Amino acid sequence: MRPNEREVDQLRKITIETGYTKHPEGSVLITVGDTKVICNASIEERVPPFMRNKGKGWITAEYAMLPRATDTRNIRESSKGKVSGRTMEIQRLIGRALRAVVDLDKIGERTIWVDCDVIQADGGTRTASITGAFVAVVHACGTLLDKGVIKEMPITDYLAAISVGVMPDGNEILDLEYQEDSKAHVDMNIVMTGSGEFVEIQGTGEEATFNPTQLQNMLQLADKGVKEIFGMQKDALQQWASHLEEKVEG
Amino acid sequence: MRPNEREVDQLRKITIETGYTKHPEGSVLITVGDTKVICNASIEERVPPFMRNKGKGWITAEYAMLPRATDTRNIRESSKGKVSGRTMEIQRLIGRALRAVVDLDKIGERTIWVDCDVIQADGGTRTASITGAFVAVVHACGTLLDKGVIKEMPITDYLAAISVGVMPDGNEILDLEYQEDSKAHVDMNIVMTGSGEFVEIQGTGEEATFNPTQLQNMLQLADKGVKEIFGMQKDALQQWASHLEEKVEG
Amino acid sequence: MRPNEREVDQLRKITIETGYTKHPEGSVLITVGDTKVICNASIEERVPPFMRNKGKGWITAEYAMLPRATDTRNIRESSKGKVSGRTMEIQRLIGRALRAVVDLDKIGERTIWVDCDVIQADGGTRTASITGAFVAVVHACGTLLDKGVIKEMPITDYLAAISVGVMPDGNEILDLEYQEDSKAHVDMNIVMTGSGEFVEIQGTGEEATFNPTQLQNMLQLADKGVKEIFGMQKDALQQWASHLEEKVEG
Amino acid sequence: MRPNEREVDQLRKITIETGYTKHPEGSVLITVGDTKVICNASIEERVPPFMRNKGKGWITAEYAMLPRATDTRNIRESSKGKVSGRTMEIQRLIGRALRAVVDLDKIGERTIWVDCDVIQADGGTRTASITGAFVAVVHACGTLLDKGVIKEMPITDYLAAISVGVMPDGNEILDLEYQEDSKAHVDMNIVMTGSGEFVEIQGTGEEATFNPTQLQNMLQLADKGVKEIFGMQKDALQQWASHLEEKVEG
Amino acid sequence: MRPNEREVDQLRKITIETGYTKHPEGSVLITVGDTKVICNASIEERVPPFMRNKGKGWITAEYAMLPRATDTRNIRESSKGKVSGRTMEIQRLIGRALRAVVDLDKIGERTIWVDCDVIQADGGTRTASITGAFVAVVHACGTLLDKGVIKEMPITDYLAAISVGVMPDGNEILDLEYQEDSKAHVDMNIVMTGSGEFVEIQGTGEEATFNPTQLQNMLQLADKGVKEIFGMQKDALQQWASHLEEKVEG
Amino acid sequence: MRPNEREVDQLRKITIETGYTKHPEGSVLITVGDTKVICNASIEERVPPFMRNKGKGWITAEYAMLPRATDTRNIRESSKGKVSGRTMEIQRLIGRALRAVVDLDKIGERTIWVDCDVIQADGGTRTASITGAFVAVVHACGTLLDKGVIKEMPITDYLAAISVGVMPDGNEILDLEYQEDSKAHVDMNIVMTGSGEFVEIQGTGEEATFNPTQLQNMLQLADKGVKEIFGMQKDALQQWASHLEEKVEG
Repeated sequence: MRPNEREVDQLRKITIETGYTKHPEGSVLITVGDTKVICNASIEERVPPFMRNKGKGWITAEYAMLPRATDTRNIRESSKGKVSGRTMEIQRLIGRALRAVVDLDKIGERTIWVDCDVIQADGGTRTASITGAFVAVVHACGTLLDKGVIKEMPITDYLAAISVGVMPDGNEILDLEYQEDSKAHVDMNIVMTGSGEFVEIQGTGEEATFNPTQLQNMLQLADKGVKEIFGMQKDALQQWASHLEEKVEG
Repeated sequence: MRPNEREVDQLRKITIETGYTKHPEGSVLITVGDTKVICNASIEERVPPFMRNKGKGWITAEYAMLPRATDTRNIRESSKGKVSGRTMEIQRLIGRALRAVVDLDKIGERTIWVDCDVIQADGGTRTASITGAFVAVVHACGTLLDKGVIKEMPITDYLAAISVGVMPDGNEILDLEYQEDSKAHVDMNIVMTGSGEFVEIQGTGEEATFNPTQLQNMLQLADKGVKEIFGMQKDALQQWASHLEEKVEG
Repeated sequence: MRPNEREVDQLRKITIETGYTKHPEGSVLITVGDTKVICNASIEERVPPFMRNKGKGWITAEYAMLPRATDTRNIRESSKGKVSGRTMEIQRLIGRALRAVVDLDKIGERTIWVDCDVIQADGGTRTASITGAFVAVVHACGTLLDKGVIKEMPITDYLAAISVGVMPDGNEILDLEYQEDSKAHVDMNIVMTGSGEFVEIQGTGEEATFNPTQLQNMLQLADKGVKEIFGMQKDALQQWASHLEEKVEG
Repeated sequence: MRPNEREVDQLRKITIETGYTKHPEGSVLITVGDTKVICNASIEERVPPFMRNKGKGWITAEYAMLPRATDTRNIRESSKGKVSGRTMEIQRLIGRALRAVVDLDKIGERTIWVDCDVIQADGGTRTASITGAFVAVVHACGTLLDKGVIKEMPITDYLAAISVGVMPDGNEILDLEYQEDSKAHVDMNIVMTGSGEFVEIQGTGEEATFNPTQLQNMLQLADKGVKEIFGMQKDALQQWASHLEEKVEG
Repeated sequence: MRPNEREVDQLRKITIETGYTKHPEGSVLITVGDTKVICNASIEERVPPFMRNKGKGWITAEYAMLPRATDTRNIRESSKGKVSGRTMEIQRLIGRALRAVVDLDKIGERTIWVDCDVIQADGGTRTASITGAFVAVVHACGTLLDKGVIKEMPITDYLAAISVGVMPDGNEILDLEYQEDSKAHVDMNIVMTGSGEFVEIQGTGEEATFNPTQLQNMLQLADKGVKEIFGMQKDALQQWASHLEEKVEG
Repeated sequence: MRPNEREVDQLRKITIETGYTKHPEGSVLITVGDTKVICNASIEERVPPFMRNKGKGWITAEYAMLPRATDTRNIRESSKGKVSGRTMEIQRLIGRALRAVVDLDKIGERTIWVDCDVIQADGGTRTASITGAFVAVVHACGTLLDKGVIKEMPITDYLAAISVGVMPDGNEILDLEYQEDSKAHVDMNIVMTGSGEFVEIQGTGEEATFNPTQLQNMLQLADKGVKEIFGMQKDALQQWASHLEEKVEG
């Protein structure tokens, strides 16, 4: 039995609040159960050196947790003077995922900085970050469009992420909370688009393995999960709905 | 005329929410106008090396801003690999201030880590951090007391901080918001106790100076401001009121 | 048409040389086409702090490239003073993959350090590293067994990795060399065991996506590839064959 | 009774030697009792990025102690690879203080670097640094003036700093030496101008507080102290006296 | 008696293989007994800031060891985040030595980066690095010449290095292997040119000293050693022999 | 002609002042012409990890220059966050040199930290540091002896260092000042003991070479120079003369 009597294919309660803080061009607070992440999208009027003079933009992401977002306090990465491998992996993942649904040619020589700051963690922070970051990026692009800085919406599709896993009893489940995540034999994060394509699949057995059947079951759970999330993103983004192509299935 | 027609001796609207996140022993969201800071207090069951085997505890603070807490995005200090001088100054100030009203002998060989994370900045983040951190620390100590870990409340007095300043027109004002702070000739942060004593006075003229009369006027404004704040802290802390000595003036 | 007229499901020429350098307990030079990696496994008689006093061991991996392993010289990470996100991702992947087939209880409170140093790079350095590192770890464990330090071989299965991808023409191919990798729309690294289970699947569309059919085709190519590699590992490890369970399929 | 039978309002013996080393544009050795600080002012023919193209200059300060300036040896900050919070606080203070009495418009697009290196420490190193640095900066500006690089002296007033404190017996004293500083309940550093204005007030109760009367007493002691110091600065600077406006009170 | 019955003035077996890896302009694997070093020379089309706009080039070297090049594993310098003093000393030495025999005017505004990566260490890694790096640099310059990038060979003389030492019995020996090096009272590294001049002499007694007679004996052994090495370099470089002035003695 | 009409074999004016600052166990100010170095020796009651439980001591040195010790200001190494290769080379050299004349068994499990801080630089800072550091170490050991902490003086011989070089005209000179050093073709630093043995020889031709005759001439100049310096050290150390074996030649 899952905590709170959740079904194996049932998402936690998800809320997506736009305009959460006042300064960023796009600002979102996403909660997935007890996981809470602030996703801010900022526009910088230049691109990193390797992208200069190409007439196109860039999207990059940073991810962090407040020291006490978790059950025991973590040392602040700024105090340690370096970013952990886990943090780097997550921020690279978020950036790659977003770039798959943004037409960089349409944003001009600008960088969209996406900051995902976990206020409270209870499993699934990286997938919540991607799901929330997408909304923040749409929000920021909408701001640019409203100001006439860009001519058309550079978003090519919806984007959401969810975790799936295999528990010690061999069962696959959707949207693991921390208590489950810490016991799971297999942990998989899946990023998909509104038209049902994969952007990223990262499946890992830590001191364990998984077979092709388990893989297929996990992919199916993820597909069900992201479809439900696209609906919530749509609701949160209704202000910009007319600028977004209709690619959410179902 | 001040923004929003505030009087020279008028505070911005302040709210103090306890129990803001679920993991920390003490967790507070403080808002002072548009400045929003999460203040978390965590208990660690050991003290830093220089305090070992003295039978007493320690309080230390860390301060950070989300990259887009401000109008333009700041580079994350974890990415830069070092903490700025400004950040260090502020976290040293917060720690010193709290230690003035906590009886370290009564918390045993434990460290109270206070994390002040600015979600949104509009001036006065360091004083809001101190004011909120005090409430988080009382909350955390209350948690220890409830669990029987400590025998009596180690808090010796209320503690709050506020900024005052001298504007280009020579007038002194209370509780500067960013728009005022950026123009002020003199910027002073004052930390006081419920019994009306000073804990810290930091007054600075950047490319300017101030005279003894202006100093006295600023001290008076600060005194008025912190007295109002003590009332709000008292409301937020009513659950632990019986454990706190009654030292708030007026 | 692929470079060197390779078939879409054809591996590059692979060689695995054991005993490559004299100091390490296990030392391997693996070449996959023009990609050359030295994989050394070293035994340290202690475990990292988080593993102490559990009576079991640990495996950790480090990965680096010589500055001129690639077409243009990269700045040495020791000169930069920090390890890149890409390097961290790869070394975490190698470590996790190896831990899936080593029974950490059987190696006692020891750490196996695996160093994968790329001498020459031409695509697929992370998968070549895993494939070579597995052989180095078996070699090192065999050394421990021969010295009587451990009682039985802690290896539970064969382990190999290979890359697959989707090219701009939509076709899936096996074992991408650099020239292909730099153009591919989708890049997937797959780590499998001798008994046909997945250890890790990392599929990424950089500014692109992939559909379920393409995923299945890539998984099939990878399955074919790793089966051929297991045969080569077996040949390279014949000295320890009697200590290894026979789990290589086909 | 104070060490060496000093009165509560008595300064230690102060000497200010100009031209201490040969390379800097301005070089001073200041001794305050057993505290010895070399203050060097160097002219750089450019300003930091945030000051460029404004037609005005900048002053910045760095502060350090020789490892064995104190009773027990401190680890060198260059070996630790980072500057402590205390050091940062002090060098920001020195820079701010100097900028209050230098007309940055008159030095052109130049940076004055002030290096305060403590050779021997016995309390009051930061205030001695400010007092000595002021003399070094006048010396350096005099050098520029003599060479015709600048047209007029950019110094608008005298500047000196002194510490005051409250001892455990509740008495306020002037110019604390280390033995006193380490016991004081309140430590306050005050920077003032020749015309009697405040530039900076930093008063701190470490695990203690102070009341308004104690504050006033400390301010009065400081006022007496800096007035005596201005006289010594004047003597040391007689070479440039004609270029300095006469603003020293009393 | 020396290991392997070597005479006091006998070199270990030396091999020099050019074209060892495919990407660098010059690539060499040098083995001196069990010491193996990859020396790669890379051409960068710019010079460091302090050399700009002088119409001449620069040569700089970097040196590293694989973590398990030695008997016990060393922590990777990239993980430590800083380069050790020993490494810095060696790479400065290699760079200086090479610059003594390369006419920087003739290579134009280019940097030759020399990377010496020790695959296996058994004493004498810094001298083997210099000897191998010289061959790699000639190889790289030959590549530039063949492509018409430079007009004439910038190499002014042969260059090789060897170690000599004084053993605890007071005897001087040539080309110390690790087992000897770790016991030697005096360790001296000598870099010489084909025409018999010294480029660098670094003689060190660690907790010991040496007298003028021992110095002369060591110099003589080194002279004999480098002359033999010049012959091997000549063989390895025969492809570029016509471009090299004939300066090898004997 | 040399600056100030010095003869080729003539030292600059040297002064050695003991007891320069009050805290260190040994404190020296050495001046060699316009080069001024503070050499402090501190006793720490423990040894570094690699020396523990051997019943003997250790000597280690650190070297730094004030930012404006030179003609143009250098960036402080603590601000850069890392120590330069040059600094590391020099501090390793000073430490090695001192260890050659101190019997580490006789100082017990203690570390002597030697800090050489260059106040003013005019060439020869590393040799002045060694010469001054020796006196500071004798001073510190004398302090230990006086306190009864150690039983006998652990110094086995006098130690001094001097530079020699070859000028563009081919002439060898003794004790180069900056103006000479910056032009010299060959720069050699020699460390010798009172009994005329070599401790360290470091001779370098930067973009130049030197022949055996020049080497012999430089060695002779150095021998003359250090003998004169030993006399000055003897004078400075007369307080401890009875504890020092008489090994100064001539």
